[in-house]
Amino acid sequence: MANTLKEARAELALGNRIAANEGVLDTFGHVSMRHPDDPNRYFLSRSSAPDMVTPDGLIEYDLDSRPVRDTSVPQYSERVIHGEIYKTRPDVMSVCHHHSPSFMPLIATGTDYVPVFHLGSVGGIRPPYWDQHDEFGDTMMLVVKPEEGASLARALGQHQMVLMRRHGVTVVGSGVRDCVYRAVQTCRNADFMVRALSMGKSVASLTEGETQLSRQITGKTTGLTRSWDFWAMRVAKADGAPAASRKPARTAAKPRRSRKLRRR
Amino acid sequence: MANTLKEARAELALGNRIAANEGVLDTFGHVSMRHPDDPNRYFLSRSSAPDMVTPDGLIEYDLDSRPVRDTSVPQYSERVIHGEIYKTRPDVMSVCHHHSPSFMPLIATGTDYVPVFHLGSVGGIRPPYWDQHDEFGDTMMLVVKPEEGASLARALGQHQMVLMRRHGVTVVGSGVRDCVYRAVQTCRNADFMVRALSMGKSVASLTEGETQLSRQITGKTTGLTRSWDFWAMRVAKADGAPAASRKPARTAAKPRRSRKLRRR
Amino acid sequence: MANTLKEARAELALGNRIAANEGVLDTFGHVSMRHPDDPNRYFLSRSSAPDMVTPDGLIEYDLDSRPVRDTSVPQYSERVIHGEIYKTRPDVMSVCHHHSPSFMPLIATGTDYVPVFHLGSVGGIRPPYWDQHDEFGDTMMLVVKPEEGASLARALGQHQMVLMRRHGVTVVGSGVRDCVYRAVQTCRNADFMVRALSMGKSVASLTEGETQLSRQITGKTTGLTRSWDFWAMRVAKADGAPAASRKPARTAAKPRRSRKLRRR
Amino acid sequence: MANTLKEARAELALGNRIAANEGVLDTFGHVSMRHPDDPNRYFLSRSSAPDMVTPDGLIEYDLDSRPVRDTSVPQYSERVIHGEIYKTRPDVMSVCHHHSPSFMPLIATGTDYVPVFHLGSVGGIRPPYWDQHDEFGDTMMLVVKPEEGASLARALGQHQMVLMRRHGVTVVGSGVRDCVYRAVQTCRNADFMVRALSMGKSVASLTEGETQLSRQITGKTTGLTRSWDFWAMRVAKADGAPAASRKPARTAAKPRRSRKLRRR
Repeated sequence: MANTLKEARAELALGNRIAANEGVLDTFGHVSMRHPDDPNRYFLSRSSAPDMVTPDGLIEYDLDSRPVRDTSVPQYSERVIHGEIYKTRPDVMSVCHHHSPSFMPLIATGTDYVPVFHLGSVGGIRPPYWDQHDEFGDTMMLVVKPEEGASLARALGQHQMVLMRRHGVTVVGSGVRDCVYRAVQTCRNADFMVRALSMGKSVASLTEGETQLSRQITGKTTGLTRSWDFWAMRVAKADGAPAASRKPARTAAKPRRSRKLRRR
Repeated sequence: MANTLKEARAELALGNRIAANEGVLDTFGHVSMRHPDDPNRYFLSRSSAPDMVTPDGLIEYDLDSRPVRDTSVPQYSERVIHGEIYKTRPDVMSVCHHHSPSFMPLIATGTDYVPVFHLGSVGGIRPPYWDQHDEFGDTMMLVVKPEEGASLARALGQHQMVLMRRHGVTVVGSGVRDCVYRAVQTCRNADFMVRALSMGKSVASLTEGETQLSRQITGKTTGLTRSWDFWAMRVAKADGAPAASRKPARTAAKPRRSRKLRRR
Repeated sequence: MANTLKEARAELALGNRIAANEGVLDTFGHVSMRHPDDPNRYFLSRSSAPDMVTPDGLIEYDLDSRPVRDTSVPQYSERVIHGEIYKTRPDVMSVCHHHSPSFMPLIATGTDYVPVFHLGSVGGIRPPYWDQHDEFGDTMMLVVKPEEGASLARALGQHQMVLMRRHGVTVVGSGVRDCVYRAVQTCRNADFMVRALSMGKSVASLTEGETQLSRQITGKTTGLTRSWDFWAMRVAKADGAPAASRKPARTAAKPRRSRKLRRR
Repeated sequence: MANTLKEARAELALGNRIAANEGVLDTFGHVSMRHPDDPNRYFLSRSSAPDMVTPDGLIEYDLDSRPVRDTSVPQYSERVIHGEIYKTRPDVMSVCHHHSPSFMPLIATGTDYVPVFHLGSVGGIRPPYWDQHDEFGDTMMLVVKPEEGASLARALGQHQMVLMRRHGVTVVGSGVRDCVYRAVQTCRNADFMVRALSMGKSVASLTEGETQLSRQITGKTTGLTRSWDFWAMRVAKADGAPAASRKPARTAAKPRRSRKLRRR
């Protein structure tokens, strides 16, 4: 079990690095994971650029976003985003908050997200927008107070993604891989939307039925594993790892689907 | 001959990697090749990110897209795209299906493709659009049933490329190099179109005559070899191969134009 | 103290390289630093592409932008930008002048900068524009005469950034890290603006209150250190440094916040 | 002198590689150089992707674009672009023909080039457009016949750049460095224009006076050397050369300004 938890922590660290390497995160933003063995705990890195997150740098939090153990290292200020969502969404096992360049033109103009191809279906059709100003007036825009996190979690509701006006995006998943996959694919879809809308034409959305059917299949079966292995290889490549040591990644990094992770 | 087939398989694997490295493919999409010695067979990789395709990972299929030999490895779900096109187009020796970011804004808005410079002529003028919804209603958008693949093949007709609404692109060629070349050059042309149309101006297409003349010359003579050698060198460079070992690629990777490959 | 100055020079050299590596600078543009121990002096590299700046290549200038010591190496022609701003703004400890691709579409169209997310707040709301032609008529567009630099410094006033019509941007900071951070984040914000405006929609700005609150927090606390460490790691990675030697960057490159640097 | 010629050939090869590495050229396009010792000869690589050009692969041509010595290696088909321009423009010592992605949206829409910042001045204000169709009707769009090259040279006239409708760009210079510098800087300016125009606003051009003054200064003095050293370092970096061996580039690759090169 300790072994299992160790693997989960390694997966979360890699998830942060993948999200950074694929352009979802840069200096800021973070991916968290609910504790695989305790639904009232979650893991989030100490304050660090996502591409520099390590398994050893993860901090264990309770759902009020207080460190379970005393720590003196700098912490992310927006961790309530994670804690408050884990409180209200027992099905959510992983959360990613980001300000990806792909999404920011939609965010800056308040444009609704729609899936323009099957892989974009994992973000749903027109996920909700949330504006911190509506409830809290002028703030420093960071989601740092419990009530701000709770407000965001309410806006998210049962969706898989919530867009934050003049700020960014928060996306959730049934596991680290699912969450990172959703983050990457919705960013690609958002990029396609921005450039399509720049042509001055309307974009065609998947229908409601297509979206439901697509989101069930993409990320399932072999697609999620294929993506994860590819992105993990790209992280290794970006690190300058020799080509030979990268190739076996396909078999080495097998998908983690333990009972524990799916328990809830 | 076994030697020849081995070279062909290596070329197909490299073709997948080139298409990935040049931005045509990412996690998804694939390039296939008709069996050089048996027109009723084709090769396609096992489920794998295109940049990780290897000659050993290729699976041999019949034209109904059933593996010729039992296999337990995960397979691409959309392989009927390849099989159904090989059935109806004896001249086609290679097929590439992709969702390149370059094309997606055109796809999302249903904009017709036109060649805006000579190299774009390999895609033709206004190749057809196909919408899976027209014939099959709400689906998961993947082309997985034989009748879906057959419908797409009918839409392709005698063209070199078919655009798939809210999905992507399928492009064909007289060989792996020709197919990959067409995929890359049409993506470049599509990118130019998207950014040109974003300026709010109309784009100038090659004339019908220019398109016919251009497509005969580009990709012929020395251009195809030059491109392939360059792209192969870039794949080696992306792998971190030492500069010295990359340079000889020009002479080492000589164009494969065996009788076998052109037999049909 | 000599040790301290040595560190400051290393930080300035790294700041130039970071700004280049993050897309703010290319062949041209430069970051300078006021002498930490003498407010009437500043450091700027000898003429060099920013990514090739070294601590040894820094030249010490007086505020009239004359080298303190005779030198025969080529110098930047636009150094009066730095000197004249240091003259009029005692709070400014670092200046960056650039023509980042992110900003140039705004510059070319005379579009006002507004923060479209919290990190963009460090540029303020609608910082001033300056047009060299207004005061000096037809010039070669470079800011090379003391009166041209002084005119630009007047336009900057008490702002943190001034946009230069048909030229570029000049941004200031309370230290090298603060200045580089402001340069990078405003470039990101500008990029978001350009692509958002290309969609033909209006962009939502932070309110005045949000901007004031955001700019106080971003770049403070842990964010600035996190960014600097990340960007320094990326410079090392771009140099091909082995992964192992890159990781400790977080602890090695600790934030320089000496009394000297904040003295003024 | 043989030594001088050897250096010139090395510079031309490097110029091709720089133009490729900076995004001006990809698989196609080429940079040529007039023979430094014989104005009736010029050098152009054998058919090769520009990033793979080597000094040994250069072919010596007469101004009718016939190889001076028999050769069996594949040659570029569009070499008359170079030969015909060298015939009519004795001041031109280097020519670059390209289809850079930066320029293609302007080309596709027939938009005039104007300098939107000082470095763009090297392309002039509204350089001429040439359309092969005007004089030759439907062709394969490549400039392969002497009369096609001559027509293009007439369109170029005394300008530094000519835009080719539905094709690309040809730019000239007083030497390889000057030509490559002009190619890179005009591409940057073109990119700024495209994105600025995508915002639906008009772009501000330098005035005629500013353009004349700017083009005299940029590329002169230290700017050209600084750029060349930087770009040469980037080519070395792309080759994976160790960081240590890259740094001395600044002093090693000193600007070639021999009498020979400026003789005409």
